[in-house]
Amino acid sequence: MTEEYWKGIDKIQYVGHQDKKSGLGFQYYNPEEVIAGKKMKDWLRFAVAYWHTFDQRLVDPFGDGTAQRPYDKYTDPMDLALAKVDAAFEFYNKLGVDYLCFHDRDLAPEGDTLRETNANLDKVVAKIVEYQKTSGMKVLWNTSNMFTNPRFVEGAGTSPYADIFAYSAAQLKHSLEIGKRVGSENYVFWGGREGYESLWNTNMKQEQEHAAKLFHMAKDYANEIGFDAQMLLEPKPKEPTTHQYDFDAATTIAFMKEYDLDKDFKLNLEGNHANLAGHTYQHEIRVAREAGLLGSLDANQGDKLIGWDIDEYPSNLYETTAAMYEVVENGSIGPRGGLNFDAKPRRSSFAPEDLFLGHIVGMDSFAAGLRVAAAMKADGFLDNLKADRYSSYESGVGADIESGKADLKSLENYAIDKPQSELIAATHSDHLEEVKDTINHYIVETLSK
Amino acid sequence: MTEEYWKGIDKIQYVGHQDKKSGLGFQYYNPEEVIAGKKMKDWLRFAVAYWHTFDQRLVDPFGDGTAQRPYDKYTDPMDLALAKVDAAFEFYNKLGVDYLCFHDRDLAPEGDTLRETNANLDKVVAKIVEYQKTSGMKVLWNTSNMFTNPRFVEGAGTSPYADIFAYSAAQLKHSLEIGKRVGSENYVFWGGREGYESLWNTNMKQEQEHAAKLFHMAKDYANEIGFDAQMLLEPKPKEPTTHQYDFDAATTIAFMKEYDLDKDFKLNLEGNHANLAGHTYQHEIRVAREAGLLGSLDANQGDKLIGWDIDEYPSNLYETTAAMYEVVENGSIGPRGGLNFDAKPRRSSFAPEDLFLGHIVGMDSFAAGLRVAAAMKADGFLDNLKADRYSSYESGVGADIESGKADLKSLENYAIDKPQSELIAATHSDHLEEVKDTINHYIVETLSK
Amino acid sequence: MTEEYWKGIDKIQYVGHQDKKSGLGFQYYNPEEVIAGKKMKDWLRFAVAYWHTFDQRLVDPFGDGTAQRPYDKYTDPMDLALAKVDAAFEFYNKLGVDYLCFHDRDLAPEGDTLRETNANLDKVVAKIVEYQKTSGMKVLWNTSNMFTNPRFVEGAGTSPYADIFAYSAAQLKHSLEIGKRVGSENYVFWGGREGYESLWNTNMKQEQEHAAKLFHMAKDYANEIGFDAQMLLEPKPKEPTTHQYDFDAATTIAFMKEYDLDKDFKLNLEGNHANLAGHTYQHEIRVAREAGLLGSLDANQGDKLIGWDIDEYPSNLYETTAAMYEVVENGSIGPRGGLNFDAKPRRSSFAPEDLFLGHIVGMDSFAAGLRVAAAMKADGFLDNLKADRYSSYESGVGADIESGKADLKSLENYAIDKPQSELIAATHSDHLEEVKDTINHYIVETLSK
Amino acid sequence: MTEEYWKGIDKIQYVGHQDKKSGLGFQYYNPEEVIAGKKMKDWLRFAVAYWHTFDQRLVDPFGDGTAQRPYDKYTDPMDLALAKVDAAFEFYNKLGVDYLCFHDRDLAPEGDTLRETNANLDKVVAKIVEYQKTSGMKVLWNTSNMFTNPRFVEGAGTSPYADIFAYSAAQLKHSLEIGKRVGSENYVFWGGREGYESLWNTNMKQEQEHAAKLFHMAKDYANEIGFDAQMLLEPKPKEPTTHQYDFDAATTIAFMKEYDLDKDFKLNLEGNHANLAGHTYQHEIRVAREAGLLGSLDANQGDKLIGWDIDEYPSNLYETTAAMYEVVENGSIGPRGGLNFDAKPRRSSFAPEDLFLGHIVGMDSFAAGLRVAAAMKADGFLDNLKADRYSSYESGVGADIESGKADLKSLENYAIDKPQSELIAATHSDHLEEVKDTINHYIVETLSK
Ligand SMILES: [Co+2]
Ligand SMILES: [Co+2]
Ligand SMILES: [Co+2]
Ligand SMILES: [Co+2]
Ligand SMILES: [Co+2]
Ligand SMILES: [Co+2]
Ligand SMILES: [Co+2]
Ligand SMILES: [Co+2]
Repeated sequence: MTEEYWKGIDKIQYVGHQDKKSGLGFQYYNPEEVIAGKKMKDWLRFAVAYWHTFDQRLVDPFGDGTAQRPYDKYTDPMDLALAKVDAAFEFYNKLGVDYLCFHDRDLAPEGDTLRETNANLDKVVAKIVEYQKTSGMKVLWNTSNMFTNPRFVEGAGTSPYADIFAYSAAQLKHSLEIGKRVGSENYVFWGGREGYESLWNTNMKQEQEHAAKLFHMAKDYANEIGFDAQMLLEPKPKEPTTHQYDFDAATTIAFMKEYDLDKDFKLNLEGNHANLAGHTYQHEIRVAREAGLLGSLDANQGDKLIGWDIDEYPSNLYETTAAMYEVVENGSIGPRGGLNFDAKPRRSSFAPEDLFLGHIVGMDSFAAGLRVAAAMKADGFLDNLKADRYSSYESGVGADIESGKADLKSLENYAIDKPQSELIAATHSDHLEEVKDTINHYIVETLSK
Repeated sequence: MTEEYWKGIDKIQYVGHQDKKSGLGFQYYNPEEVIAGKKMKDWLRFAVAYWHTFDQRLVDPFGDGTAQRPYDKYTDPMDLALAKVDAAFEFYNKLGVDYLCFHDRDLAPEGDTLRETNANLDKVVAKIVEYQKTSGMKVLWNTSNMFTNPRFVEGAGTSPYADIFAYSAAQLKHSLEIGKRVGSENYVFWGGREGYESLWNTNMKQEQEHAAKLFHMAKDYANEIGFDAQMLLEPKPKEPTTHQYDFDAATTIAFMKEYDLDKDFKLNLEGNHANLAGHTYQHEIRVAREAGLLGSLDANQGDKLIGWDIDEYPSNLYETTAAMYEVVENGSIGPRGGLNFDAKPRRSSFAPEDLFLGHIVGMDSFAAGLRVAAAMKADGFLDNLKADRYSSYESGVGADIESGKADLKSLENYAIDKPQSELIAATHSDHLEEVKDTINHYIVETLSK
Repeated sequence: MTEEYWKGIDKIQYVGHQDKKSGLGFQYYNPEEVIAGKKMKDWLRFAVAYWHTFDQRLVDPFGDGTAQRPYDKYTDPMDLALAKVDAAFEFYNKLGVDYLCFHDRDLAPEGDTLRETNANLDKVVAKIVEYQKTSGMKVLWNTSNMFTNPRFVEGAGTSPYADIFAYSAAQLKHSLEIGKRVGSENYVFWGGREGYESLWNTNMKQEQEHAAKLFHMAKDYANEIGFDAQMLLEPKPKEPTTHQYDFDAATTIAFMKEYDLDKDFKLNLEGNHANLAGHTYQHEIRVAREAGLLGSLDANQGDKLIGWDIDEYPSNLYETTAAMYEVVENGSIGPRGGLNFDAKPRRSSFAPEDLFLGHIVGMDSFAAGLRVAAAMKADGFLDNLKADRYSSYESGVGADIESGKADLKSLENYAIDKPQSELIAATHSDHLEEVKDTINHYIVETLSK
Repeated sequence: MTEEYWKGIDKIQYVGHQDKKSGLGFQYYNPEEVIAGKKMKDWLRFAVAYWHTFDQRLVDPFGDGTAQRPYDKYTDPMDLALAKVDAAFEFYNKLGVDYLCFHDRDLAPEGDTLRETNANLDKVVAKIVEYQKTSGMKVLWNTSNMFTNPRFVEGAGTSPYADIFAYSAAQLKHSLEIGKRVGSENYVFWGGREGYESLWNTNMKQEQEHAAKLFHMAKDYANEIGFDAQMLLEPKPKEPTTHQYDFDAATTIAFMKEYDLDKDFKLNLEGNHANLAGHTYQHEIRVAREAGLLGSLDANQGDKLIGWDIDEYPSNLYETTAAMYEVVENGSIGPRGGLNFDAKPRRSSFAPEDLFLGHIVGMDSFAAGLRVAAAMKADGFLDNLKADRYSSYESGVGADIESGKADLKSLENYAIDKPQSELIAATHSDHLEEVKDTINHYIVETLSK
């Protein structure tokens, strides 16, 4: 490494319960520690997002960027792009993560034509590949930015303009080739412009057919070049577009089923996007995993009182516990899944060290969630509670319902003379308040150990 | 008819533009007038909802019922139930609608057992059937109330308790039999308790499998008894339950596809439910019709600044225009579809005549929407705009994309050397502000004619 | 006590960290333990709400009550009302609280006239007063229910109908007299119907003047009879009414200032109401305390993804920590303030013991919040952070600004030639991510001690 | 004028009902036509916002600017700034408006110091002043942008850093001087950064005191230099900051009262900001006008299903009718008030002519609203309805309440023996459904005349 970018910051270590004041150490994330039969790092597979960590200037719709970054001295776009690779790999190493994620446009500036853009990009990718050899860093997923440039103003794969579809397809081709070069385990599609501003001027079905075509083309080409990535769709209900087609997990599953994509594609789910759709993060993960379509996770949190995507580093232990409970139930995030920090510092956390502090709270919060979820699992707390709650389906009329033996007539026969008192007696309080109290105790007791 | 219930109210007539002050006449709804090739009454097929119109006491979570109804003198539940049938058919006749909708429990009080409950119900249904013979009134749909009674506290088809599932199945059996007796054109399922209060204690997949089983049992039994109704699911995202499985149209479609219900079931969509899910009513209708799954419509409106279901009579001409535009595009609401007023007066509109005034604003607003949509269609306003917007897919590279001839390689070849200026030139302003202004003109000019 | 109502439940004890599984014991609430210089019970002053605990049937807009209560056998309204007093005082004793809160209509049924209603009420109050003598139970506050009865459909103090205003005033008079009899420390006004359904038919200013008149009459009459209660207004933005005048703390303060009520009235703040107004609970408490108008607190929590009032028992340790941090900063909730559980079980927690379990999670969560807030205060964690952040106002130009010495001209002189780099250097990262991580550590480490 | 910027666009004329298709003409706005005793242009006093019309590139958080503007060829910032003045005055003339609004930073680029920035700005202002002489264009209001630059990251007047407060004061001084030069009728403060990201590190009261100091300094200095503008605060609840202190009209009024600003300051209210605070635009205007604090209006609309500020051109006739009804009731927007289009095209309406089309829909929609409101006023429709609704306060016990003669005792005497039936009879249905229907008729019939 030529120059040290993140000065004054040493490799972040697991320090355990050293101090209530947070600092440059992990208190819950101990990568090699075995929890529920697997190393923490193998459950969590943390990835750093290039866009938010190295490119994000901390702008907002009413303000210019506040970020102070150690490579701000570079003014030539390609010099800057190459310097950022050095900074990035130093960052990965100091933070202690094994995975990165990126959009094509995160890495290098655009030229006037795609050919020129690809050439810029290839230089940066070459440098990344070199770093991968020495560092062992892996790519959790890469993706293609088809939303920032004005040409995508009305969509990429769903643009009303065939030339823009064609361009998107061409851009995607190169992005898949890059995925192969860097060995991406997954390939993500986030359709920030794939939706509508108004239904009055939109052929929704035609647009969705186009999107599906593009996804099929992508999978076909990946197969052709031997790029063995798990394809993932990332839902978000709105922002920037008034309505995005991949609204939430269930909507995206309907789309995948309609267009025969559910064999080759899975979902990449984000906490803040869940909230914007009116859901908890846990809900989205549950929907995906019960459909067998949980692919990977974007780790961040929203503010439920705020109506836009803030992509905050996760710190809420209730949410990380719930997410990791779903993961523990699932055995893993998924064969190729990881936790990518699609998260950025607040605009007022503009110092270089805030990038470390932000990842630390995020990693520690998910590590904590894993510990708590594993403890609840080990004790059978929720398993017992649910086994008990649904036990009536294990015998008698319940078993007949499960097995398909029952029909309306047999069930009428069973129920028609039951008095109300007996029906009420068949229901049970779920004691939800006690459950919430118990979860509080699990959080405190597990993490303080 | 023994007694006049709605005193002082004559049959509501089409009066045209008589007065700005609304009153007991239709200014836009002229049932026999032909619009876009069909009589207004055949486009709209208005239905009166028994629950909100005749049973609703105008309670809210902080207040007792304020409704003043002409049959309030009846204290015996069966007397009241039978009197309401008289009042209802007088109401239908005076309002000039051809369809009614009802839940089983709207009609008659429960007994201690289902057998007793069915007996009560059968008496009321017999009276309805008699009225149908003389009045020609048809049933747009009937349904089963499986959410009010405490036994359904944790669900009906998705209850964790097999006895409750069994009871629900038995109740449903009788409800289907009633549907056959009254000749319902559709049969609706609204799953107000089919969801979860908390994911911590919920086997979501098991519950959804149970729901699907119940739907299949229903369809099988309907077939068995020759009850030829279109089966419909009505989405709502939440309320009363924290999360309901039939969150919105797309989610429900995913469920129908997963459980092989999309051949026999379609959707019944409601405006207020759309809003609670973060959607416009138009969006939900579009999603359903493009999937070929638009069944019927619940006509009401929500207040987007309010987070619960207010089921207000529709009055917003933008919303009724948008809904009817989708219907005109679709050729009809659907072969069996109609517009059911799942709507109630505000708690402060507690007088008997408010039930007429509420239906009048609702019917006139949808009639107005039909007129405006038909005028836009006749002029080709939006058709031309969309044809132009998507025209690049009709030839050249666009046609290759549509036909499946293109792939990533051919499209890269096409796009790789296009300069940014050419790509930008391929996109066009959609002049959305002008579109909105034009819609204002259509509303004013069409309705003032 | 004649009969034991809450069978199988002994007096709830502080058990400390006995078990992760919650049960009938407090793990954090140790009433006599001194935290930050005061006994826990004196910081917290927990009160049980009569309406939710003893009257609430767990209805919702789509469902009948599910509650199972030990006094359900009573059918005569007055017998039931009197039995509930026995049950209530047994409950207070077993739970270990010192305060109750009630609406007039919680206690006894209405008669046809206010005179009859008052007579019913007086019998129940007499029994409460007797119990107070032996139990030492105090009344944190009482209030008048002027929203449930249909007569209040369009408001009580803001009703467009003078007779309803008059009735409300008369009802209030008796309620104040009861307050004096039971020694209420505060008197609360929640204006659930004091707002509008539509602005088109509302004289908002006239209605607000009427409300102010009623509050002044109340204070005058309280003075006259020597009822020395702190008067409190409780904000809520909407539900049941489309818009309620006491929208949030700041709006209510504006109203109090406009109508000269800010000397005699303070605020009673509720967590769920804060959320419905788009605020955190902490925000509302901060607004009130910095205005010197924090009176008392309603302890509950909302679900930010749900748009109506769920009045859930508090369990979120982030929220209770934030609320108690404001209280610790304030020195107390207020001289007369307490934490009233305006909270009810979920409809699925319908068993009698859920009332205990719900209060336990609520009391323990606030006790935990107090412990964490006190620990942060003792360490000076946030005090130091803020002292540092605002330190530039303690000398130089900052001190001139504070003291009023600076004006636009002197500040122009100071700033006009400062380069951007110097201005940027004057701002500092607030490291919010680190702050959130530290708060996590405080929660875990403080509670596990 | 040296060069024509808005080629192909002639002066926009009133064309009346020419065509349903909107185009480059006004169908409702006829500036010299007298409505309700005043010329339309005098009721409406439309202003064009410099920032959205001439500076806005149509970026969003996920996309670069799409705007195509006729002065895009200028690359030197000062050349561009000066060219935009030419383009702006050509635009005003062609559109036919009499007022403009601007932030200081809209006009000219910043230098490294405020002195340099002021010098840039003064050149552009000189050019504007020249144009004013020949065009008669007036400035409705100017303001100071104290939110875009990174120095304002944690606030301007409420910054924790005294140097930033000092800089803000200095910037404001110059902005007031410019206001005087251009003859601004009002001066606006929008506090986009005046709020908090987190309460944990915020001294809210100290920050609000600082804000109040800055407002007082501004008023004092304006008096000193003889700048006779009405000072205005513009509320917005959030975005960009998590919470902004000027949350809504009522909150800002509380602040103004607390800090003795309500004599010299009024409110500038925006529709989209109202929605973000959970209010209708009409509500905010009503609150301000009943407090005597309505200053001016920002004309735009939000999408209630979207949680961020979209600043759409107004097109919803319900909203413009409601806003103009409040204005007609008030006699005017206010002595200095006008309708400033704080509105921008959608990102997909990127063509130059969309700026005209957007203003046309906005101006026509408010002109329509004025026509409808005036017609309702002329007929006494709502006046009669309200006079009737509140008539019980004009005599008897109602008059005693109004006059202050009544107290709790006299009212108890009046009400204590009234039976429930009499109380219910004293309330009346407000027939809200009929009111909404009538408003539909007013819109259609008034606009089609
Ligand atoms: Co993401
Ligand atoms: Co996001
Ligand atoms: Co509904
Ligand atoms: Co419905
Ligand atoms: Co509440
Ligand atoms: Co409360
Ligand atoms: Co705005
Ligand atoms: Co504005």
